[in-house]
Amino acid sequence: MSLNETNAWKMFGGWQRVYTHNSAATGTEMAFSLFLPPQAEQGPVPLVTYLSGLTCTWENVTTKGGFQGKAAELGLAILCPDTSPRGLDLPGEHESYDFGSGAGFYLNATQDPWAKHYRMEEYVTGELRSLASKYFPLDLNRHGIFGHSMGGHGALTLALKNPDLYRSVSAISPICAPMQCPWGERALTGYLGHDRDLWRNYDSCALIEDGKRVKEILVDQGLADQFLGGELKPELLEKASAGAGIQLNLRRHADYDHSYYFIASFMADHLNWHHERLRA
Amino acid sequence: MSLNETNAWKMFGGWQRVYTHNSAATGTEMAFSLFLPPQAEQGPVPLVTYLSGLTCTWENVTTKGGFQGKAAELGLAILCPDTSPRGLDLPGEHESYDFGSGAGFYLNATQDPWAKHYRMEEYVTGELRSLASKYFPLDLNRHGIFGHSMGGHGALTLALKNPDLYRSVSAISPICAPMQCPWGERALTGYLGHDRDLWRNYDSCALIEDGKRVKEILVDQGLADQFLGGELKPELLEKASAGAGIQLNLRRHADYDHSYYFIASFMADHLNWHHERLRA
Repeated sequence: MSLNETNAWKMFGGWQRVYTHNSAATGTEMAFSLFLPPQAEQGPVPLVTYLSGLTCTWENVTTKGGFQGKAAELGLAILCPDTSPRGLDLPGEHESYDFGSGAGFYLNATQDPWAKHYRMEEYVTGELRSLASKYFPLDLNRHGIFGHSMGGHGALTLALKNPDLYRSVSAISPICAPMQCPWGERALTGYLGHDRDLWRNYDSCALIEDGKRVKEILVDQGLADQFLGGELKPELLEKASAGAGIQLNLRRHADYDHSYYFIASFMADHLNWHHERLRA
Repeated sequence: MSLNETNAWKMFGGWQRVYTHNSAATGTEMAFSLFLPPQAEQGPVPLVTYLSGLTCTWENVTTKGGFQGKAAELGLAILCPDTSPRGLDLPGEHESYDFGSGAGFYLNATQDPWAKHYRMEEYVTGELRSLASKYFPLDLNRHGIFGHSMGGHGALTLALKNPDLYRSVSAISPICAPMQCPWGERALTGYLGHDRDLWRNYDSCALIEDGKRVKEILVDQGLADQFLGGELKPELLEKASAGAGIQLNLRRHADYDHSYYFIASFMADHLNWHHERLRA
């Protein structure tokens, strides 16, 4: 595997970099951004992976999330993958915003034609992690994960299934129970087929019911979010966590919506959350 | 004059709002964004106007500048106008990135067909200021101005000519002497004609030579900026300021370029600069 650096910007004393590489997991070229704080010049730093929501690439949060200032202060590297394979033209892949390109849902598809390429779970937890640790001064014993909306779903499910990989987890406006909302039902049907038992591997609430655990989760949710009642359903995560002894710090915020303006507003809190759990 | 609110996002405890209105100055509809910090709910707050660079609208800095967190902390309102009139189709208006739409240069044009609409100086210093003070809890006795690139040029020239309006001024990567660079020469010729004496009203260095003064200026400039030597020329501002007793705090930063990644990196410093000069 080799990396191609496509952009690098000095930022807050560190470097905001962008790479492409050929991915074995997806069989396509993939792109990601990586912010390296100034502390990375002295040695390995903790890493936080940020998973983006529907329609996004690495670029949205990298330009609009406002994470670099706080990450530079705390000495955190921030890794932002894409949300799906790109450069394919599978039947129907580009027809809707909530399925196919830009909507990989951080799972490994089993249904044709998606199974061969839509393997974002393997990509994020395996290949990209290996690549990052090979090329950059990162201490992957101190790796946290968070994300927004579909990416919040990704962060929660991947953390629940991989407590050995991720030592901290949080989410902003996450899709809490994809088995119980239109976005999720469409994606899980399309990528995994009609056997709902298989869907449980990609639903935070079902994973908790089935015994998966993290110690604690921070979730921020805006109450003016247009997707709150229909798609996100934090009350289901609240119920599942309460029944499982998971400390869920779910904060509901009046007037905030689903946008990057909301993400940016609470970005520093999430980085502080991970920093507290990743130090030493 | 009436305002049409086109967007409003809760952000960092305040509100990021966007408006359109019919402008008497430009004879077109104009759009701007305004961030109101939480302190504005208790009464008038100081205002800082941010002028954007070539090709931008209110949206670039509002989504990528990262100013809202620090502005909320300091209790500053941030006003971001567009960079030119829009919705026209003057001959050649949309053909280049550095002249016409997106490139108003914060002047009042005298040449046809620009003279009727390209009146960004009058718009920013007059109409928009009046409108803002009429509709929002702003203390315009505490008004600062800054900007980036073409907007840095705008901030410097408008502050030099209007010490009664602006109590603080700063710039990021400003065009320091438009009479002596290709961007500026093209714009000043197109909007003002060939009499270079008339150009002096829109060139910071010439204005200082002609006796205009501000007490102090903060300027940040990246040394990896591709426009540094050809267009920006901070050394000319340095020379003009030194000869005029203006305290210029010109900071040169290795490795930083001309992008919003640079702007965001030093945004907090600029807001602190204005805050220090606008309190009480």
